[in-house]
Amino acid sequence: MNGKFIVVEGLEGAGKTSAIQKVIDTLKAHGIDDIETTREPGGTPLAEQIRTLVKNGHPNEPLTDIAELLLLYAARIQLVENVIKPALSRGAVVVGDRHDMSSQAYQGGGRGFGKMLMQNLRDIVLGDFRPSFTLYMDIDPTLGLSRARARNELDRIEQMKLDFFCRTRKYYLELAAVEENIVIIDASQSIGKVAIDIQEALESYLIYEG
Amino acid sequence: MNGKFIVVEGLEGAGKTSAIQKVIDTLKAHGIDDIETTREPGGTPLAEQIRTLVKNGHPNEPLTDIAELLLLYAARIQLVENVIKPALSRGAVVVGDRHDMSSQAYQGGGRGFGKMLMQNLRDIVLGDFRPSFTLYMDIDPTLGLSRARARNELDRIEQMKLDFFCRTRKYYLELAAVEENIVIIDASQSIGKVAIDIQEALESYLIYEG
Repeated sequence: MNGKFIVVEGLEGAGKTSAIQKVIDTLKAHGIDDIETTREPGGTPLAEQIRTLVKNGHPNEPLTDIAELLLLYAARIQLVENVIKPALSRGAVVVGDRHDMSSQAYQGGGRGFGKMLMQNLRDIVLGDFRPSFTLYMDIDPTLGLSRARARNELDRIEQMKLDFFCRTRKYYLELAAVEENIVIIDASQSIGKVAIDIQEALESYLIYEG
Repeated sequence: MNGKFIVVEGLEGAGKTSAIQKVIDTLKAHGIDDIETTREPGGTPLAEQIRTLVKNGHPNEPLTDIAELLLLYAARIQLVENVIKPALSRGAVVVGDRHDMSSQAYQGGGRGFGKMLMQNLRDIVLGDFRPSFTLYMDIDPTLGLSRARARNELDRIEQMKLDFFCRTRKYYLELAAVEENIVIIDASQSIGKVAIDIQEALESYLIYEG
């Protein structure tokens, strides 16, 4: 595998879509043209079917937290094996809208599964596959959710209580502090300043990695 | 939980359907009327949707072995939490067409995931939830598959090579040898003899358990 897998992470309303566009623009400015984008959960026919299950649930049956977690990992491994790894093998840069850090934060933190179970499951499913570089868009959940609500994009996950997102953010920050190759971007800043921070972080990584 | 969860396991063509009927008849003959049947994967609206994904896959995308495994466990925990545990709580006897032993045998043995990973995943998903009693219908895969083929019931799983089913049977037998409350029924015998063996095994269990 010669390519790079660059992931943008963060809570709802953290500005991931704009951040991904800035990443792509920065890569192109550095002469990188073979760029593939992914979003999780989803990104393959089967993974999109699984995404629909997770996002919509069923009117007469609660989706258990553990089933949600397993479905997310099933979608993830389909994407990794059928899309991400083939792209990396041909030398592409894959830019991901969410990846495993989302599960670690939302399920490990938000849902309360905890670090040990989550890292155990991650290792079972993904082995040692990890992103090359992650930008974590950090935002206070109150501000992020108000932005997301203004866009009318509330699904089953986004209707969770504020407390859930506070636990998720706490986990994101803890992971960003200990895992390698993760840069925290202050997403509460102006759009212009956020874009500059993203560009600088990504360029530092690209220069360092050669 | 006061009820009992009785599971019938075995390869394709081992005669699980007839065995389940014999279990139900025997229970009724012992005055047990609150009986619920389940089949895996499936048995709830969401689990049936997951079953369809697993059984059919997608024409343009291979279902990875690990995604298959995760989907099976997602379907299983939906069934356990939303159907089996509630039934057991009200004192019912649940008769299951397959349960976790299938995953241990087909995925652990047939697919080659091995015991450690499989038991690790089982504990993550199911905790200490286990069947009360299991009848394992043992059959040589050559005979079992020829029976299944005669019924025209070949799906994605059943189209696997003979070698896969030999590994699966080996695992079934190994598990039956070490796990508690599993009785091996020789399913290559006549229908009449198989029925007698099932009745005797189940009655011994019911008398022992009071």
